[in-house]
Amino acid sequence: MLARTIIDRFEEYCPLFLAEENDPVGLHVGTLNKEIKKVMVTLDVRPEVVKEAIFHHVDLLIAKHPLIFYPIKQLDIDDPQNKMYVDLLKHDIAVYVAHTNIDIVQPGLNDWFLEMLEVKNEGFLKKTHEINEVSYGIGRVGELSEALSLREFSEKVKKVFSLNSVRLVTKKPETLIKRVAVCGGSGDKFYPEAIQKGADVYITGDIYYHTGQEMIARNLHAIDPGHYIEVLFISRVAQLLSEWKHESGWNIEILTSKENTNPFIEY
Amino acid sequence: MLARTIIDRFEEYCPLFLAEENDPVGLHVGTLNKEIKKVMVTLDVRPEVVKEAIFHHVDLLIAKHPLIFYPIKQLDIDDPQNKMYVDLLKHDIAVYVAHTNIDIVQPGLNDWFLEMLEVKNEGFLKKTHEINEVSYGIGRVGELSEALSLREFSEKVKKVFSLNSVRLVTKKPETLIKRVAVCGGSGDKFYPEAIQKGADVYITGDIYYHTGQEMIARNLHAIDPGHYIEVLFISRVAQLLSEWKHESGWNIEILTSKENTNPFIEY
Amino acid sequence: MLARTIIDRFEEYCPLFLAEENDPVGLHVGTLNKEIKKVMVTLDVRPEVVKEAIFHHVDLLIAKHPLIFYPIKQLDIDDPQNKMYVDLLKHDIAVYVAHTNIDIVQPGLNDWFLEMLEVKNEGFLKKTHEINEVSYGIGRVGELSEALSLREFSEKVKKVFSLNSVRLVTKKPETLIKRVAVCGGSGDKFYPEAIQKGADVYITGDIYYHTGQEMIARNLHAIDPGHYIEVLFISRVAQLLSEWKHESGWNIEILTSKENTNPFIEY
Amino acid sequence: MLARTIIDRFEEYCPLFLAEENDPVGLHVGTLNKEIKKVMVTLDVRPEVVKEAIFHHVDLLIAKHPLIFYPIKQLDIDDPQNKMYVDLLKHDIAVYVAHTNIDIVQPGLNDWFLEMLEVKNEGFLKKTHEINEVSYGIGRVGELSEALSLREFSEKVKKVFSLNSVRLVTKKPETLIKRVAVCGGSGDKFYPEAIQKGADVYITGDIYYHTGQEMIARNLHAIDPGHYIEVLFISRVAQLLSEWKHESGWNIEILTSKENTNPFIEY
Amino acid sequence: MLARTIIDRFEEYCPLFLAEENDPVGLHVGTLNKEIKKVMVTLDVRPEVVKEAIFHHVDLLIAKHPLIFYPIKQLDIDDPQNKMYVDLLKHDIAVYVAHTNIDIVQPGLNDWFLEMLEVKNEGFLKKTHEINEVSYGIGRVGELSEALSLREFSEKVKKVFSLNSVRLVTKKPETLIKRVAVCGGSGDKFYPEAIQKGADVYITGDIYYHTGQEMIARNLHAIDPGHYIEVLFISRVAQLLSEWKHESGWNIEILTSKENTNPFIEY
Amino acid sequence: MLARTIIDRFEEYCPLFLAEENDPVGLHVGTLNKEIKKVMVTLDVRPEVVKEAIFHHVDLLIAKHPLIFYPIKQLDIDDPQNKMYVDLLKHDIAVYVAHTNIDIVQPGLNDWFLEMLEVKNEGFLKKTHEINEVSYGIGRVGELSEALSLREFSEKVKKVFSLNSVRLVTKKPETLIKRVAVCGGSGDKFYPEAIQKGADVYITGDIYYHTGQEMIARNLHAIDPGHYIEVLFISRVAQLLSEWKHESGWNIEILTSKENTNPFIEY
Repeated sequence: MLARTIIDRFEEYCPLFLAEENDPVGLHVGTLNKEIKKVMVTLDVRPEVVKEAIFHHVDLLIAKHPLIFYPIKQLDIDDPQNKMYVDLLKHDIAVYVAHTNIDIVQPGLNDWFLEMLEVKNEGFLKKTHEINEVSYGIGRVGELSEALSLREFSEKVKKVFSLNSVRLVTKKPETLIKRVAVCGGSGDKFYPEAIQKGADVYITGDIYYHTGQEMIARNLHAIDPGHYIEVLFISRVAQLLSEWKHESGWNIEILTSKENTNPFIEY
Repeated sequence: MLARTIIDRFEEYCPLFLAEENDPVGLHVGTLNKEIKKVMVTLDVRPEVVKEAIFHHVDLLIAKHPLIFYPIKQLDIDDPQNKMYVDLLKHDIAVYVAHTNIDIVQPGLNDWFLEMLEVKNEGFLKKTHEINEVSYGIGRVGELSEALSLREFSEKVKKVFSLNSVRLVTKKPETLIKRVAVCGGSGDKFYPEAIQKGADVYITGDIYYHTGQEMIARNLHAIDPGHYIEVLFISRVAQLLSEWKHESGWNIEILTSKENTNPFIEY
Repeated sequence: MLARTIIDRFEEYCPLFLAEENDPVGLHVGTLNKEIKKVMVTLDVRPEVVKEAIFHHVDLLIAKHPLIFYPIKQLDIDDPQNKMYVDLLKHDIAVYVAHTNIDIVQPGLNDWFLEMLEVKNEGFLKKTHEINEVSYGIGRVGELSEALSLREFSEKVKKVFSLNSVRLVTKKPETLIKRVAVCGGSGDKFYPEAIQKGADVYITGDIYYHTGQEMIARNLHAIDPGHYIEVLFISRVAQLLSEWKHESGWNIEILTSKENTNPFIEY
Repeated sequence: MLARTIIDRFEEYCPLFLAEENDPVGLHVGTLNKEIKKVMVTLDVRPEVVKEAIFHHVDLLIAKHPLIFYPIKQLDIDDPQNKMYVDLLKHDIAVYVAHTNIDIVQPGLNDWFLEMLEVKNEGFLKKTHEINEVSYGIGRVGELSEALSLREFSEKVKKVFSLNSVRLVTKKPETLIKRVAVCGGSGDKFYPEAIQKGADVYITGDIYYHTGQEMIARNLHAIDPGHYIEVLFISRVAQLLSEWKHESGWNIEILTSKENTNPFIEY
Repeated sequence: MLARTIIDRFEEYCPLFLAEENDPVGLHVGTLNKEIKKVMVTLDVRPEVVKEAIFHHVDLLIAKHPLIFYPIKQLDIDDPQNKMYVDLLKHDIAVYVAHTNIDIVQPGLNDWFLEMLEVKNEGFLKKTHEINEVSYGIGRVGELSEALSLREFSEKVKKVFSLNSVRLVTKKPETLIKRVAVCGGSGDKFYPEAIQKGADVYITGDIYYHTGQEMIARNLHAIDPGHYIEVLFISRVAQLLSEWKHESGWNIEILTSKENTNPFIEY
Repeated sequence: MLARTIIDRFEEYCPLFLAEENDPVGLHVGTLNKEIKKVMVTLDVRPEVVKEAIFHHVDLLIAKHPLIFYPIKQLDIDDPQNKMYVDLLKHDIAVYVAHTNIDIVQPGLNDWFLEMLEVKNEGFLKKTHEINEVSYGIGRVGELSEALSLREFSEKVKKVFSLNSVRLVTKKPETLIKRVAVCGGSGDKFYPEAIQKGADVYITGDIYYHTGQEMIARNLHAIDPGHYIEVLFISRVAQLLSEWKHESGWNIEILTSKENTNPFIEY
């Protein structure tokens, strides 16, 4: 079957127009006009993931994080980033990216985060689009069925996302938490919206030192679990593909990347 | 004695012209044309530090991190940041900032980091100024007297800076490390210079997820200890002030802030 | 009573959204969330006005001209402008500014000018906003009940606004004048609109030498009475406050600044 | 003789490179490659001056103020400004402009101002150029042989420049004045330099209301005599041309414009 | 009769608002408020055309190409471009320009091109405006009644527009052509629209070397006939003026420029 | 041998720093760190050239025109330009570009043009660099040993560069020509320099219609031979490589592209 067919179904669910402005989503490498047998879902496209894909004779990678961050000016292959592009091209592996559009679409990555954390979902944190009188937005806000201390809730976050540690922004880890805002990726710029929506705690990655200090001054607690919780993308998108495969009788094999692309080790 | 006298001595050591372009260093609040009795050295100026300074009747704060990040458009005191400015003004506490100039000056904060880590200092990571045929630069590079594994060296970093944990960028924590680059604050943009200077490991804060992945692809190990190791500023600057006090017979009391302004708790 | 209550009533009359883009109106210093007893209305906030306000234990200043023109980068109090901010903060005097919004609102400063000059008001000079199908604009145009010579009309302007002299733009002071355009403050950029609306004479401040020459070439007469006629703001806003006080039974004292902040003496 | 010959001599005295950046000096209309018999010196080029020049069969106008302020996009001659260009072109009248270069050159317009006011000239207010190790600057500073009150000195300014009135920036007109800064045209942006050079009073045109208030807060007195004192350009440049005519035996007639181009009447 | 009357009728047909943004259309030189007897239509306004117009006592030139490309900063008449403006002004010849508005209006220049080439017109190449629910666009697309080889069609283009040669972009001049896109002037930036609209060949001027290579890679053939085919403007606009003259009983003589302003000779 | 070795020798002759700012010269595709056996010199890198290179098992292409004009945002291989990159990468063909640096270097492409046309070379048209007190520039000026008519000289240009036709900018093809300026590629913006250097004729590509008209008004003749005369790059660079091969005993085969990449056919 054609790669195009799979992606058409994917975009019916998660259209490109939901992405933030200038966010490079969609086809990054190769072509969708080709027969494929194996699709692999991955969080990142890194040299080790490409190696894995080559090993399994993958035809199409579906990734969360964009591959071509900086427009390419020279295809100098001594550079490891360019080398990776060449390996994909040489092995006819297409790469398709769903980035901020899957953060925004409903249900999408942020909804799945709330679901995992057993938070009742009340909708987005900050509106980004209005299309045909339907509003879409980034991040989510919701409420726990019963209040937990920040410490207890942090334990839950660690457990749910299999993290060794999280970074807390707080002076009082025993404060009771009921209302939760979440934004996968780097969302510290949206903290005023979290305050405005009445959140007790805001879960997002890459919280900057001075922004953390501002949060404390404004009485917002935060949990920074890093970027790697987005690895949830892999299982959930693989599951969607699997459902569509059965619905439509697609003749493809669906794989998930086993490589750990998290550059960080908490030590 | 006049605040001006102390700062003149400080700037003889660490001149303002060494700061990076547009970095807001120097007097931030109040005046240097006043008699002072108590100076307090601090990493950050946050509401809790201001409270501490008021409690101790401090006349002058010397801080590492700039206080006025964003130019002030309205002095609305319901805002906690503005409220802090007003508290300083009401209690006649002047604030003086040495930011990137003390990162660059020799010996300065980055030199003290190497000294603490027992790394032989070979000079700056990236040149920033040339003044009267003397070169100045940000970050430092040097060598350990004997190679350690990245894991052992990380232990040393944690011990020396009293950290519970650090964030490692590596796939091989047992790699032997001999050559070390360091840049206090957020220095991940200088990682190509660390590679170019032959560093095995680069110590800097706020390493971005995708930059971490690039480091791994380019075989550079890194240790992200956060911003708070800069707290070393407090003891070292207090010590310098103390030396100058004795040299010049200054009649002032030198205090150091005891407040922990680190917004993060690793949990 | 709360400062907020007074300002809510004021903004019901003269909303912030009527101000020109980027015009810094609204609260400039302090807080509206406080009990107040004394309000003073003033044209400018200058050191002598602040002294006057301190002397009378004023809690809230309502001013026509913005106080913070240039965003504040360093609160160095040896600077007289910063010193003035500190004096306001130390004495808990809030400052609220109505600038171009009171030029535009109807009735507002420009309407009061026409009323004083006995000119029949025909509406604005140049449209600035359209809100809920209502148009708003800056400046006003209207007609005298009978024609006067430019010289006679200038006498009237001087008498009405208690000026020793005005600056005329004309080669023929005896020309008969019937149609009048007015724009308080610096309005010389709107002179083409005055021509278009058929004005014989345009009253505005800060007319530039070469713009004056252009007006003459295009047969528009003008009267430059300076900025200080805007002092009418004081009595008119005080009168409005007084009316609202009686309507709502406010327990406040309303003062007007007696300081002459006009920097110019015609000599 | 050729217009070029006269202008070569003029530029030997007052070169174009002394003008401020982007100041449109030099030939504005017509050609210098033509025989001329009559030169007229004028402050401005306005329709009435062009009429006067046509009446006297003038071949070349030398003006202080630039003629083409805004680049011409359409030569629509219903516009009075364009009509003036056409009248010049139809009557073969060339126009040459010396603007900020004659403010800067030594001796130039600002030196002549000090001479008229009997102020001992100590050099420029603000350096603008350094050419072959010679410094040039705009404005001038100097000292009166004996102190006068601001009021007395203002009388002198009015008398020397035949003005009916001047605009004073002061709260204390009786203050004694000894040190004087001057900058013809619109020089209010250089007031900090006047303070720095120790001036008691600053003479310049177009002082802005809020800048006037800043001057008062910083204890600088000022006299705003308007732009029209620059009319001194006419007699002084005519005198120079006359000297050069006799030195070189030029066969030209030198006229001065008698039209009053001041758009303002103080009334 | 007044020039204004003719131009009012012309703009009823071809309004200024159809021009592309920042395209300088309309009156360029002189006035429309004058009696005229002779109108000349021309492609370009060049010195030789001005000479021709002077010779024939023309009062108004209607041109396709703008005359004032670059805003005029100095009317130095030793420059041939400025000299041409002066000649027009001295001889009271007004110049009116219809540039991209006559490319866009329907029927306009691009429609006339298709008509001459016997291509059935299907509408514009790229939409530029939507006014009162009517769409307007630049370029045109259409179909030949029967397919011709590119070589045959090129012959037709040469014959119809009296060209000695055209520049073909092709590797296969014998390809059969049925669908044609055309855009007078420099239209190579619209080649993706020509592909999208299914054109076999695209006729436009100033095709850039590397754009030509891209067209070949994307299988679009092109014919570059240069700018001078726009000379069709002359006869067609003269014909329209003639029709309006008879309809309205205008008392004017309509001339057409005979000067060849094509700067190029194919040799 | 290594590609690096060849390019080091090439850059010794024609260094990258001679290129104009932002001109993308140097390695465009692949790596220089590899063993090579076959080098091909080409004017352009187009799909047909890549096919030719693959056929001949070429390892390194040296081209005049940059390959990656626009930074690559997505490596979608359905696009023919991207497809070409992939074909190069899949076949391990490196591409190295010498663009404006070989226009500027002495002797370089413009010198070879003059040599072919038997024009005595007097140096560059417009200075671009000064390095160690040596000046470099783009374009060249020189003189014929005896004057030719423009028509005769055009014949020579056509013969020397094997062109079917050239485009002349002239009204008088019989004018005698002695002094010649030349600038390969698109050099019409430098025509004022050609006038200034006294050229009778200027040879350059892509002359714009209105620039051609300006040249005629300013009495400069021009010959536009298009871009394809730069094909001289192939033979001359191949000859240099051949010389260096013999000097240094390189074990490589040097090929020249036989594909005609000129997108234009004059018809």
